[in-house]
Amino acid sequence: MEKFVDPYQQEFYNKYGVRTDLAIEAHEVIVEREGPPELPGVIVHNEETEHATISRVTVETDVGARLIGKAPGNYSTIDAPALRGHNREIHEELGVLVAKEIQWFIEQHQLGPEDTVLVVGLGNWNATPDALGPKVVGELMVTRHLIEFSPPELRKGLRPIAAIAPGVLGLTGIETGEIIRGIVGQIEAKAVFCIDALASRSVNRLGSTIQIADTGIHPGSGVGNKRMAINEETLGIPVFAIGVPTVVHASTIVSDALDIIGGEDPEQTQRAQELPQKTTFNLDPQSIMGSQAQKQSQPPVTAEQKRYMVAQVLEPYMGSMIVTPKDIDELIDDVTNVIAGGLNTAFHESVDYSEIFQYLS
Amino acid sequence: MEKFVDPYQQEFYNKYGVRTDLAIEAHEVIVEREGPPELPGVIVHNEETEHATISRVTVETDVGARLIGKAPGNYSTIDAPALRGHNREIHEELGVLVAKEIQWFIEQHQLGPEDTVLVVGLGNWNATPDALGPKVVGELMVTRHLIEFSPPELRKGLRPIAAIAPGVLGLTGIETGEIIRGIVGQIEAKAVFCIDALASRSVNRLGSTIQIADTGIHPGSGVGNKRMAINEETLGIPVFAIGVPTVVHASTIVSDALDIIGGEDPEQTQRAQELPQKTTFNLDPQSIMGSQAQKQSQPPVTAEQKRYMVAQVLEPYMGSMIVTPKDIDELIDDVTNVIAGGLNTAFHESVDYSEIFQYLS
Amino acid sequence: MEKFVDPYQQEFYNKYGVRTDLAIEAHEVIVEREGPPELPGVIVHNEETEHATISRVTVETDVGARLIGKAPGNYSTIDAPALRGHNREIHEELGVLVAKEIQWFIEQHQLGPEDTVLVVGLGNWNATPDALGPKVVGELMVTRHLIEFSPPELRKGLRPIAAIAPGVLGLTGIETGEIIRGIVGQIEAKAVFCIDALASRSVNRLGSTIQIADTGIHPGSGVGNKRMAINEETLGIPVFAIGVPTVVHASTIVSDALDIIGGEDPEQTQRAQELPQKTTFNLDPQSIMGSQAQKQSQPPVTAEQKRYMVAQVLEPYMGSMIVTPKDIDELIDDVTNVIAGGLNTAFHESVDYSEIFQYLS
Amino acid sequence: MEKFVDPYQQEFYNKYGVRTDLAIEAHEVIVEREGPPELPGVIVHNEETEHATISRVTVETDVGARLIGKAPGNYSTIDAPALRGHNREIHEELGVLVAKEIQWFIEQHQLGPEDTVLVVGLGNWNATPDALGPKVVGELMVTRHLIEFSPPELRKGLRPIAAIAPGVLGLTGIETGEIIRGIVGQIEAKAVFCIDALASRSVNRLGSTIQIADTGIHPGSGVGNKRMAINEETLGIPVFAIGVPTVVHASTIVSDALDIIGGEDPEQTQRAQELPQKTTFNLDPQSIMGSQAQKQSQPPVTAEQKRYMVAQVLEPYMGSMIVTPKDIDELIDDVTNVIAGGLNTAFHESVDYSEIFQYLS
Repeated sequence: MEKFVDPYQQEFYNKYGVRTDLAIEAHEVIVEREGPPELPGVIVHNEETEHATISRVTVETDVGARLIGKAPGNYSTIDAPALRGHNREIHEELGVLVAKEIQWFIEQHQLGPEDTVLVVGLGNWNATPDALGPKVVGELMVTRHLIEFSPPELRKGLRPIAAIAPGVLGLTGIETGEIIRGIVGQIEAKAVFCIDALASRSVNRLGSTIQIADTGIHPGSGVGNKRMAINEETLGIPVFAIGVPTVVHASTIVSDALDIIGGEDPEQTQRAQELPQKTTFNLDPQSIMGSQAQKQSQPPVTAEQKRYMVAQVLEPYMGSMIVTPKDIDELIDDVTNVIAGGLNTAFHESVDYSEIFQYLS
Repeated sequence: MEKFVDPYQQEFYNKYGVRTDLAIEAHEVIVEREGPPELPGVIVHNEETEHATISRVTVETDVGARLIGKAPGNYSTIDAPALRGHNREIHEELGVLVAKEIQWFIEQHQLGPEDTVLVVGLGNWNATPDALGPKVVGELMVTRHLIEFSPPELRKGLRPIAAIAPGVLGLTGIETGEIIRGIVGQIEAKAVFCIDALASRSVNRLGSTIQIADTGIHPGSGVGNKRMAINEETLGIPVFAIGVPTVVHASTIVSDALDIIGGEDPEQTQRAQELPQKTTFNLDPQSIMGSQAQKQSQPPVTAEQKRYMVAQVLEPYMGSMIVTPKDIDELIDDVTNVIAGGLNTAFHESVDYSEIFQYLS
Repeated sequence: MEKFVDPYQQEFYNKYGVRTDLAIEAHEVIVEREGPPELPGVIVHNEETEHATISRVTVETDVGARLIGKAPGNYSTIDAPALRGHNREIHEELGVLVAKEIQWFIEQHQLGPEDTVLVVGLGNWNATPDALGPKVVGELMVTRHLIEFSPPELRKGLRPIAAIAPGVLGLTGIETGEIIRGIVGQIEAKAVFCIDALASRSVNRLGSTIQIADTGIHPGSGVGNKRMAINEETLGIPVFAIGVPTVVHASTIVSDALDIIGGEDPEQTQRAQELPQKTTFNLDPQSIMGSQAQKQSQPPVTAEQKRYMVAQVLEPYMGSMIVTPKDIDELIDDVTNVIAGGLNTAFHESVDYSEIFQYLS
Repeated sequence: MEKFVDPYQQEFYNKYGVRTDLAIEAHEVIVEREGPPELPGVIVHNEETEHATISRVTVETDVGARLIGKAPGNYSTIDAPALRGHNREIHEELGVLVAKEIQWFIEQHQLGPEDTVLVVGLGNWNATPDALGPKVVGELMVTRHLIEFSPPELRKGLRPIAAIAPGVLGLTGIETGEIIRGIVGQIEAKAVFCIDALASRSVNRLGSTIQIADTGIHPGSGVGNKRMAINEETLGIPVFAIGVPTVVHASTIVSDALDIIGGEDPEQTQRAQELPQKTTFNLDPQSIMGSQAQKQSQPPVTAEQKRYMVAQVLEPYMGSMIVTPKDIDELIDDVTNVIAGGLNTAFHESVDYSEIFQYLS
């Protein structure tokens, strides 16, 4: 949940004023602002299951990457509002979906069944919404130390898995990328999976969207310092990132509010016309929001104005205020089970999934 | 941090659209909206120390109570931005201030030096921003069980203190007020101190304001059910509430944003004209915000519109989204030390303060 | 895990020098020392299932109570070494067994299906081996607050369950019995279930034995003070205690060692003659332990000598040293799931067990 | 607290049947068994302060190392029963003592004031008695990431400190030594400090003895596998180990008991003759223990017998049973503050100690 900014994301932000860790949200923004696009070099494929929508965004070219604000590579998004329920059976099904996606990524990168994998839980275990990574690591079937000393005939299908939750830069004084690079070198890992809590653009993705990507992670540039990326370029092996939004930056919320009143967000305006029918309150959007004409007569808010107004609401904490659901602790626990279940299944092919879920307490 | 609504607060909310647990904020709202008031039946007294401003609001009459939206009684507010720093010495000084205020309340209610006091840590220890009450209870010098079996000559100045952090309704199935009433009856307590995390109206009070009041606590009416107040009326003994804002409701933040653009908040508008000089950015408020005239031409946002727009930004979590600083865990730890230090000092008069701070790890 | 001493237990201890919270262990001691007994007024009934032995000890008369060192009442013991494995399926089966035993107790005491039950998690959540009670409470389906506001037609089979983990005397300054009595009065509970970590006499019961009894709990007399029992006599309603041994007092371990060398423990001596054949080490008990004759020539260790020698090994911590397995944290988590699952099933008859286990994360 | 066995320790164990992580205890064993020694190549120097005894054992030669069962190097032991009290002032004084010893080690190894140091918290944060290392790391002033980006003139006296608590082999699948070696390579550390919970031989050292050594750490050989040492040989830079005993192996306790009754432990026997005068019980050791003659007539217990009898008491948990004080959680917190305070002071020479203790909450 440290702010991840890569150069592509920065260019996208400058253009649209939106900061999101999710490729699918970036794509949505473009659709909202510019209509259904034909983004050259970006392929989007959707699939529906009973409890989830799976979107696979492939960014094939650098042109596409700059348009969508995401580095070239593959981005799978599992969107499952049911993740927020407490139904264990549905969670198990979602775990299977996650496992399938992970296996697809493993195949794409031709990882062998006995190649060592290092799983890294990013984030800070002291801060509930940022503890997802360390919690997932706590539920993993770690096997590398067992396999090393087993006879070869028993190792079949049990992949050597190592795992660490190193803690954030403020606690260790070491770039997470440095720690990972050091360990990767020692254990000769063939791939890294990073698990992390993300920030999304919209509250309704919190705890209900899982993104898997093979483009690694770009820790945010803080006070002018360049921070080390965690990707194939810096580590020399594929880096998969699994992320779930657990917070929205407070500045995003405020900015959204300003957009609504400014009438700048077509999706919101459209929702304003649709939603009332679904709600139990008897609201007529026309009478509530005033006519479209009225709104358009308002002078549009400039990006500079917006930044200034956001600062007014959020001072003195500005950049560091986050928005979470009150029950974030339960949400994190549920998501942890789904992702850990998915990883355990994907990593240990010959192991039966129900057995694995039993392994998790 | 369960939403506390008493009838006075409801009336105030209906009038001003502002929900705050702090008397001082309610007073500020009135000043903002209606100019410096002479509120009949409300006495405000301020005092400055090196690191804090202490405001004592006394609501003397029911008329005053309805104007300010707070039950008749005393409200002391210690406003100390330095609480957010990590300076242990300043924290000790603030602990002494808190102790003094508590002692003032104890004297007002003529509590004897050997009267048993029950301290109740309200809130949910699983949710970081709501864990303040339970954490304070964990740092208290609990003495009742020791005194009961000590020879009378040793009991001098050591007040019988009992403490409990019962957990929230969702975890216990029991109204917190019922639990307290049951225990008060058993141990013949002469007063109750409730410690609780509050919601404030503004982010800049988070972790920096401590409110002490003798009017008890009114848990929020949830789904139509009346919840039991925790006050002198229901318990038969004085109930003091010590609260510190640790969250702002996300709806408040969004609402503030809407106010700013709507130009409804004179304080904010004024700030907009003042602040830029202080910042390093070269901002001309006139050019950023547009002229006052321009803004006033905008059709004002009605309360209904506002509620609708807030819902759009925060769905599907609406009522349960909270805004906190990222480092809320450290902030809670610091505030815990100050309040526990203050209580320990105030309760055990003959005990030296520095000794007590040493007792706390 | 506070030391529980009732008058019966004290008399038993004076006679046999053994302190145990388990009726089944007390019975074993008598068998060991005095041969297979016909204890008047004590009925023992055993039952075998695939993964557990269930023993029901009924103490019918005061004479029997004094012989076995346990108050008159019913004691069910589920002995399941598989509890220590991490097999989720077996844990679910054991949860069903626990539920059945609880239902048997509920029937014995003619508790109606809609009678309110208060579950109390005894013990200290800060100390891993003593955290069982609070952890079980954290996994309960608490329903009282829901039922109160539901229409009667929906309440069918959903018993009003309230729950609390009040913390130990040292943290609250209040006798746990006082807290419970206060709450029972407020919510008009018809029965209390206390969950607690116990001390056993033998390490091989740790985490593998569950005792359910209807005789309540007798907190240990500490420094000369009489502590309040938690039972039907003090509360006016049935008090069921569910306990699992998580520690052995270090003094018991030392004492056992002294017994072995003193040849005082026939069971141990017998084991010494049997075990070696089962082990992989080639040990001849005769040559290892010396002949029986040799041992009997040793002057027997008196109780006074034993106490003195135990003190030597354990000073300066003497009474407060406990013995636990290194992986006590995992063991507590497993047992928590089994007991919480059992309680949830037993309390909510119409609710399907597999659904309930899904409810638990 | 993983069992650390180096070749020297193994040889010592074979000879004396005693396993201890503390050089000072090893020395005591030799004194007990063989009388006041002149161990060639081993220099012992003692110093008394108000609250502590400081012993410095220097093992100069390989002969000495084999005699005392400790690798050649320096071992400082701070023995402070007051560490077990909760007096903050004394804890601060002990922190200063720890800082002085650490500085002595730093000087011995000619570490420059701006050389980067990596602090490693060994052990498992889920198991209270093994959490010392991770907890100390949590209280450190970590500075490496700050210094890297500060202007050189501000870096004076602020040493680059990095820190990590990697977790145990069972959780990571990676040898702790491998993780450290990987990180040391990345950050070019000039020394490593390992913080760890130890096992001692005697309960009265628990939480009251701090050992600092420059000989690194030898994780125990488990099931036949050789584990990687963490020392200058494997890392190429000095490795300092700071350890505090928090557990006694249950087998040690049982073994001690057997020794007492066997009369094999001269120290114990001597104590048996001295202690009674100090206790409030009126015990005559002669009459309690029997005459020395009587005891010597007993056939001595062989090592094989002893192992067998220990197994009887501790099965089925045998090797994994540990003995701790009940209040181990508080003890760990106190020791954490003392060691973290000591490290922070020693590392940042120009920083005032009282300021640093204030930095710790």
